Amino acid sequence: MTVVGNGPRTRRDGVVRRAELGELVLESRFRLPDVHLAYETWGELAADGSNAVLIEHALTGDTHVARGGAGHEDAASAPEGAAAAADGWWDGLVGPGAAIDTDRYFVVCANILGGCYGSTGPASPAPDGVPWGSRFPRVTVRDSVTAEALLARALGVSRWRLVIGGSMGGARALEWAVSHPDRVAACAVIAANARVGAEQLAWGQAQSLAIRQDPNFRGGDYYAGEYPEAGLGLARRIAHITYRSAHELETRFGREPQPREDPEATHVADRGRYQVESYLDHQASKLAGRFDANSYLSVNETLMSHDVARGRGELRDVLARTRCEWLVAAVDSDRLFFPSESAELVAALPGEQELHTITSPSGHDGFLIETPQVGMLLRETVLRD
Amino acid sequence: MTVVGNGPRTRRDGVVRRAELGELVLESRFRLPDVHLAYETWGELAADGSNAVLIEHALTGDTHVARGGAGHEDAASAPEGAAAAADGWWDGLVGPGAAIDTDRYFVVCANILGGCYGSTGPASPAPDGVPWGSRFPRVTVRDSVTAEALLARALGVSRWRLVIGGSMGGARALEWAVSHPDRVAACAVIAANARVGAEQLAWGQAQSLAIRQDPNFRGGDYYAGEYPEAGLGLARRIAHITYRSAHELETRFGREPQPREDPEATHVADRGRYQVESYLDHQASKLAGRFDANSYLSVNETLMSHDVARGRGELRDVLARTRCEWLVAAVDSDRLFFPSESAELVAALPGEQELHTITSPSGHDGFLIETPQVGMLLRETVLRD
Repeated sequence: MTVVGNGPRTRRDGVVRRAELGELVLESRFRLPDVHLAYETWGELAADGSNAVLIEHALTGDTHVARGGAGHEDAASAPEGAAAAADGWWDGLVGPGAAIDTDRYFVVCANILGGCYGSTGPASPAPDGVPWGSRFPRVTVRDSVTAEALLARALGVSRWRLVIGGSMGGARALEWAVSHPDRVAACAVIAANARVGAEQLAWGQAQSLAIRQDPNFRGGDYYAGEYPEAGLGLARRIAHITYRSAHELETRFGREPQPREDPEATHVADRGRYQVESYLDHQASKLAGRFDANSYLSVNETLMSHDVARGRGELRDVLARTRCEWLVAAVDSDRLFFPSESAELVAALPGEQELHTITSPSGHDGFLIETPQVGMLLRETVLRD
Repeated sequence: MTVVGNGPRTRRDGVVRRAELGELVLESRFRLPDVHLAYETWGELAADGSNAVLIEHALTGDTHVARGGAGHEDAASAPEGAAAAADGWWDGLVGPGAAIDTDRYFVVCANILGGCYGSTGPASPAPDGVPWGSRFPRVTVRDSVTAEALLARALGVSRWRLVIGGSMGGARALEWAVSHPDRVAACAVIAANARVGAEQLAWGQAQSLAIRQDPNFRGGDYYAGEYPEAGLGLARRIAHITYRSAHELETRFGREPQPREDPEATHVADRGRYQVESYLDHQASKLAGRFDANSYLSVNETLMSHDVARGRGELRDVLARTRCEWLVAAVDSDRLFFPSESAELVAALPGEQELHTITSPSGHDGFLIETPQVGMLLRETVLRD
């Protein structure tokens, strides 16, 4: 197991690195060879190893959770520096002086196994040199944590001060606390649940079919041909609606037509769009431009696999084995990961736990938007020292 | 304008008939020639014409709202009798002795313009003899009511005792009350709203794309080739999730695998289904077996067109022109037509109106399932005589 980069003490903040982890045996017993994970770090690991924080990204997230700190910039490497300086998806929550203070903590974010931001995934070459494509195995939340546990060892982190994630990131954080109780001091599960239920499975199926039914998908072996952009775009539209709230969509868009377009044309095929359609078109093409369709299917399946008690017994008994402090928070307007599901998780945790609420008009995406509230909750609970 | 059938006094209950309405000028100014509407009736129109009830079906509904009454059966016509005897989609609410009592009321249900249950739609031959297909014009809620107003005249109904509908049927009922205030004595709007908002437009777009992106769709001109079944099935899955409630799906299916299937196979393409996936597959294939994909797009666009105040001024002023009694009811667990939207409609109606609540665990489909509650509400309000 090797870490490629500048070594643990001289890492530059917010720059993608890659850890070679060797063969990984998945839950399905499939032996995935030559696995690597892409990751970024911020700050320095303390000599006693006590200050490491793992941030788990959501479904289509990447490793760039925050900007690279200016103090760590290296003018000798301009392109790398530019990437490091780009906005992160949890800027404001992570950085110098932020709740997850990169002057105090050594922060790590790894791209999920099966993803397309540098980790081994369906677009990676199989041993025969051809992309895995349809041959890429199903990856569970547990598999993703198994890979990250190897990364932690490679980075010299024997115990995380905190593992935190929102949405599927929250599922992964929860899995860490259960599968490695002695390696997690605190766990923050934001806008997530103990298990993906029937409705999320249903949305997952719809998204999967949207991609699979694109004729360019060709069963997943499309890398030499046209890209299944339309199918991936439709999957994203479906998902994106569930990420927001009806109230927010109504307030922002209502029934307004897109400027200079006429939704009331005689023939449907010619008609212009409502603003909300244009907005979703934009979300679709943004994702299709940055994400691999097979990886989308992979992370979608990973999310669908999420049930922290699966095969382990009763949820309460499974959670009794954990040894960490908890922050569980739900977004009040979330209609994908319902606050009631977060409450069920809280009720099943050992000890007296509390469900915290993030107030947001934006629905599930509130966990990404309301960073001051997430930061305040962290400072009041698992990061209060 | 001709009514084909046995004439107004000798109709058999629950048998599809067809009214030829001639050319119809749509809102878009498109002149649709040779329009006909399919319809069924139950009971007899009173000599003073005071007992006619119009029932408006929802998105993919048909004319068969109730079984044909036994007293009206004609043994000489077996196939027609069998169709008449088939279950209706609002049995229990409509029939002899029911809230909409076919021994007292003359009940009419017409297939929407653009539909595929006998009315002129995209699969109908255009003047050149070829199905309209992609050339079929966009039909608005107002267009559908314009056609039904011609049907009413053909049936000798100058004023409806009641116009009632749920979901898009409720939108059509509301439109009747606004566009023909002197021809509607009472109006019942169940699980519907005054306007389709941003989120429903968004779901409409996703469903439309699911069909349009099916390679068999061929822009809508597929009648000579393969049927876009997969796309229509995906549209139905998306819609069906929004028709039910997360709680109901969870209670019925949870994360259970379909019997004899394994959702945890190594490769996603081979994996078995969760029960909820099998359930949605079933909903998809049922619809694809009974509905035309172009008609689905047509009624989807009709629903998206719904805004009773569009181009008419403020909603309150538009509704001030109505002259009827009202029943407005929402399903408490509806997450497609939100109870808050029904409340907004109630607040904008003239006079003091009340929002009634249908209690159901089933979400939007509660308007079809909780017929005893709908019947009770009718008896307590607009049909209390």
